[in-house]
Amino acid sequence: MEHKDSSPQTMDTLVSLCKRRGFIFQSSEIYGGINGFWDYGPLGCELKRNIRDSWWRAMVRRREDVVGLDATIIMHPAIWKASGHADGFADPMVDCKACRHRFRADQLCEEHGLALLRTAGGFALPPEVKCTHCGSKDLTEPRAFNLMFKTYVGPVEEEGAAAYLRPETAQAIFAQFRNVLETSRQSVPFGVAQMGKSFRNEINPRNFTFRSREFEQMELEFFIRPDEAVELIRGRVASLADKPDLSQPQDDWGWEVWHKYWVEQRMAWYRAIGLPAASLVEYWQPKAELAHYARACVDIQYAFPFGVQELEGIAARGDFDLTQHHKHSGKPMEVFDEQLKLAAAGMDAAARAAFTQRVTDTWSRDGRDPEAARAFAALLLEGKYIPHVIEPSAGVDRLALALLCNAYAEEQVAGDKGKTETRTVLRFYPSVAPVMVAVFPLVKNKPELYKHARGIFDALQRRWCCFWDESGAIGRRYRRQDEIGTPFCVTVDFQTLEDGTMTLRDRDSMQQERLTLEALKERLDGLTA
Amino acid sequence: MEHKDSSPQTMDTLVSLCKRRGFIFQSSEIYGGINGFWDYGPLGCELKRNIRDSWWRAMVRRREDVVGLDATIIMHPAIWKASGHADGFADPMVDCKACRHRFRADQLCEEHGLALLRTAGGFALPPEVKCTHCGSKDLTEPRAFNLMFKTYVGPVEEEGAAAYLRPETAQAIFAQFRNVLETSRQSVPFGVAQMGKSFRNEINPRNFTFRSREFEQMELEFFIRPDEAVELIRGRVASLADKPDLSQPQDDWGWEVWHKYWVEQRMAWYRAIGLPAASLVEYWQPKAELAHYARACVDIQYAFPFGVQELEGIAARGDFDLTQHHKHSGKPMEVFDEQLKLAAAGMDAAARAAFTQRVTDTWSRDGRDPEAARAFAALLLEGKYIPHVIEPSAGVDRLALALLCNAYAEEQVAGDKGKTETRTVLRFYPSVAPVMVAVFPLVKNKPELYKHARGIFDALQRRWCCFWDESGAIGRRYRRQDEIGTPFCVTVDFQTLEDGTMTLRDRDSMQQERLTLEALKERLDGLTA
Repeated sequence: MEHKDSSPQTMDTLVSLCKRRGFIFQSSEIYGGINGFWDYGPLGCELKRNIRDSWWRAMVRRREDVVGLDATIIMHPAIWKASGHADGFADPMVDCKACRHRFRADQLCEEHGLALLRTAGGFALPPEVKCTHCGSKDLTEPRAFNLMFKTYVGPVEEEGAAAYLRPETAQAIFAQFRNVLETSRQSVPFGVAQMGKSFRNEINPRNFTFRSREFEQMELEFFIRPDEAVELIRGRVASLADKPDLSQPQDDWGWEVWHKYWVEQRMAWYRAIGLPAASLVEYWQPKAELAHYARACVDIQYAFPFGVQELEGIAARGDFDLTQHHKHSGKPMEVFDEQLKLAAAGMDAAARAAFTQRVTDTWSRDGRDPEAARAFAALLLEGKYIPHVIEPSAGVDRLALALLCNAYAEEQVAGDKGKTETRTVLRFYPSVAPVMVAVFPLVKNKPELYKHARGIFDALQRRWCCFWDESGAIGRRYRRQDEIGTPFCVTVDFQTLEDGTMTLRDRDSMQQERLTLEALKERLDGLTA
Repeated sequence: MEHKDSSPQTMDTLVSLCKRRGFIFQSSEIYGGINGFWDYGPLGCELKRNIRDSWWRAMVRRREDVVGLDATIIMHPAIWKASGHADGFADPMVDCKACRHRFRADQLCEEHGLALLRTAGGFALPPEVKCTHCGSKDLTEPRAFNLMFKTYVGPVEEEGAAAYLRPETAQAIFAQFRNVLETSRQSVPFGVAQMGKSFRNEINPRNFTFRSREFEQMELEFFIRPDEAVELIRGRVASLADKPDLSQPQDDWGWEVWHKYWVEQRMAWYRAIGLPAASLVEYWQPKAELAHYARACVDIQYAFPFGVQELEGIAARGDFDLTQHHKHSGKPMEVFDEQLKLAAAGMDAAARAAFTQRVTDTWSRDGRDPEAARAFAALLLEGKYIPHVIEPSAGVDRLALALLCNAYAEEQVAGDKGKTETRTVLRFYPSVAPVMVAVFPLVKNKPELYKHARGIFDALQRRWCCFWDESGAIGRRYRRQDEIGTPFCVTVDFQTLEDGTMTLRDRDSMQQERLTLEALKERLDGLTA
């Protein structure tokens, strides 16, 4: 067997492949489509389901320190005021006055190999920039455009009734932090996970499903102690310089170790669902790129046909978000930490004063308010703090696209009559493949064999996504399954009636072996659980 | 053991129960909430996940004649023009001119024990109706209020950019009908299923999560042949009068049998996830209540504390929806049916004329256009038609609420010291319970026992949602699990170290038995697959 792999090289190939096989359709296609919206067909929605299920299993069900949340898309608008989205979640936009085409200013500059200029009041275009549609230089100044979709709740369209479609799932986790803490028997460190649709009114949606206006997120907010609390409790704070063992969380970890732990966890998950380590880039944002509240941020990137782009961002956000909601809602976001209270109770007045001084000095050195530092230290000594947070934030649609790109291959193989032919195959890992196993009766006109095959199909279908195919030569049936990425094909033949074994054919090696139903179930169980 | 069951009698009990145990919180609660929006906490989101998974398994993965779709919430606005929602999806609204309170006109009349009056131009209030808030009779005339949330796609808020949040998931299925048909190897009869969020800008959201503004639907559109096509192919059309066996679809079924088949399927599913037959009402809408395009509609209802209300509607909608999109999009929605073509080819000219005459007569008798009847018959004789549809449409939130109401019980049981005490228990079926099994080490200070218990926990957690609890007396740990509806508790004790058996305690009978891990896994497998 000679391999000649070729990932889809252009977006057109990819879009056409996705449509032809029922993975992804343009939304509202019969009405000419709607820019930036995509629907998932029969195979696409199973792929997405598998991605979501795998994430939820890894992040929630198999962990004792993470619980789930499923909040609404439309929330109280005050949430977006507190989070900063109402005022700051905007892209710079320019219009061409000649042809009325509209651009995202930074993207337009990029297409000229230039960067958007920052001014005192906002942004400006470098003078070389032209409209890429008509060539005119008659462009408006860049102006901020808020990316949140706005609607009105209740029957009157007035500002008091305005609400927004969430641009991220994360904020609901902060807004419901106290309710979850009070009802879930969790204590810091612990996390809250949420999956669901988010919406951004992108000026120029592009790159197929990669940058669309309606998309699906999988986000975790993992709440940790501030380093100063760790120090009081454990007397030390482990940092990356200590080369900690990251396999199991420890209570002396500072934020830096927790952040690295989550980067490792997430990278391992991507590998586990079939993106090879070599296809992923771990991009550590330099300090200058970080948002003002972020302490560190790592992007996990994948090499798409249109460039190396972000699948997930893992940010250490400090206590920014909970503090904002603490201030804006007037509801306390501090937690009480029994261990911290005990540690503080064991300190004498001198130790407490020294601790407060140390915190104040450090904050002052970082240019932060010394009064706030003293208040923070005082609160810690009462056993209280606002938790800090590590946020791994991933996109379902981007990942589905990466898995499709990664799975696609064309190979030259020996055909039935010795001729070389092209085999198109989607090499999905079993845990994400839309169909897990296809079942074929060798022939359809032998009632006993047919009935036996149906019995096997029914048994497998109780647990896995299965496909029944009784028409055409077995070789053709294999090819059909290769094209949709089914890892296993089972053929029930006359020998099955005698000894209960059937032929299992592996998609990738194209090798066949005989095994019993029990052995097959055990194999599949090991691959999908 | 004496049973004294009591379902939650008032909405307040239910709302408080849901909040206290982390099932359901008010959205944006820290900002005073937002009317008509509800969030699901750690246990609530697992309950919802189990409902969705069970529906998807029953409706898609275990059927060969249904495939899935996952379309966007925002679609091209022309879809809502075609479906009738843009013009007709409205509730009559009245305002009190004195206190400015706003009501849904039909609900306001109901509260007076009256019905809203229909007029030539719309609606009118009976003269007795007063504002239930301030008592004034100074009310506006009822006027139509469209329930779709409106937003603008792209940077300009102009009518051309207006779009709507979908008020139902069904329409995307019709809009993508051709794409699914062409890529999925299905042919009529077959179905397309979709789950997801829908939005209705209710004038008065009420009854907790039952009537909210953002909710989740599970809808199937099952496409069938028109009866006339069945008649041509099979020479007869089975109706309910033939008392057909509904266990397995047959190709002589007319729409009436298909409709009844889906009612039976859906009722069986509700029973399978734990709503007893006695708690469900199958309400067949009288002809006068039906929408103009519907041939029949059955509501599956549940007795909530606030009244008997609909969980699901199962409608026979004829070819209304596909025909509307056929007309509005200009894209053909007819399918070609090989068997029909063959049947028609076997008819002589006289038989074809007689068939056309029969169809025309029947349509004319029903007051329908004879010319349309002739066109329909001609199309059939070419082997083509627009499929008819049966639509089972269910709500995830309503069902979650019904399962919570149904599961709740308070019992008087014998306590540890022989005293009678009240046990609060949620009797969820294992297939929907947020936690499937809790694992307890008998004591936590025996490392060997502790480690063994952890091993069992890890093995179970690979497949099921598990809970680890090591603190407090075993009896107390049982009670905690009873309160969140965990069907099984496993205690690992000293005997486990000797013979590998552990204690399995059943939530409902409170009986205990000893079994091995293998036996336990087999039992759980049978209950959840």
